[in-house]
Amino acid sequence: MSHKDPDYARLLRFRKALRAFLRWSDERARELGVTPAQHQLLLSVRGHVDGTPTIGDIAEDLMLRHHSTVELVNRAEAAGLVSRRPDPNDRRVMRVGVTRRGDQLLRQLSSIHLSEIRRLAPLVDALTTE
Amino acid sequence: MSHKDPDYARLLRFRKALRAFLRWSDERARELGVTPAQHQLLLSVRGHVDGTPTIGDIAEDLMLRHHSTVELVNRAEAAGLVSRRPDPNDRRVMRVGVTRRGDQLLRQLSSIHLSEIRRLAPLVDALTTE
Repeated sequence: MSHKDPDYARLLRFRKALRAFLRWSDERARELGVTPAQHQLLLSVRGHVDGTPTIGDIAEDLMLRHHSTVELVNRAEAAGLVSRRPDPNDRRVMRVGVTRRGDQLLRQLSSIHLSEIRRLAPLVDALTTE
Repeated sequence: MSHKDPDYARLLRFRKALRAFLRWSDERARELGVTPAQHQLLLSVRGHVDGTPTIGDIAEDLMLRHHSTVELVNRAEAAGLVSRRPDPNDRRVMRVGVTRRGDQLLRQLSSIHLSEIRRLAPLVDALTTE
């Protein structure tokens, strides 16, 4: 058995914190009655920097295929979280917005996520400074 | 459509960076001929702070069930990455160590991961300061 390298212990702590954060995040979404993917969809729509995003914009954010993104938007629309509308300048392009309910859910989720992410910061710092 | 909240854009950037990092990490492991789970197993073994870990220690690090952890260790042992040996003080307890090949792979992976994680740090800082 070779000697212990302190970088391994720090990398392990970082990955453990990431896994715990992602599981925690999934659980918070489900607790509020949405899937983790629907939570990420709401964030993609409301976090989009200019206007309402297209399916292509969302697919890029979520690293999903176009087809999977369409299915995700369909299910979220059926759940009353988002709505689809044609672009006023090009009616062939569909844009996705959030509903009032989607907005309320994202506000709740974002607030608790910001607090939780503050707990991750020291782990990243421990890996990046020295 | 309600107004844009800057926290949403920052949370979205953070989650995009996490998704990209995890996908990048999976690809680096596969490029070196191991599965992402085997990479995390090697890190759990070498990052363990005192001595060689038990299956239970590894299960806790990886947030896996005992049964799944045993299967992961079996496949990694067959691939020549780890070896199992009974605890000298209690031969009913199995401890897991890395082989020379596992050690070499983890060293390569850890070095490129530390560099990549340095790129994530500003995103976490942007969320946690102000």
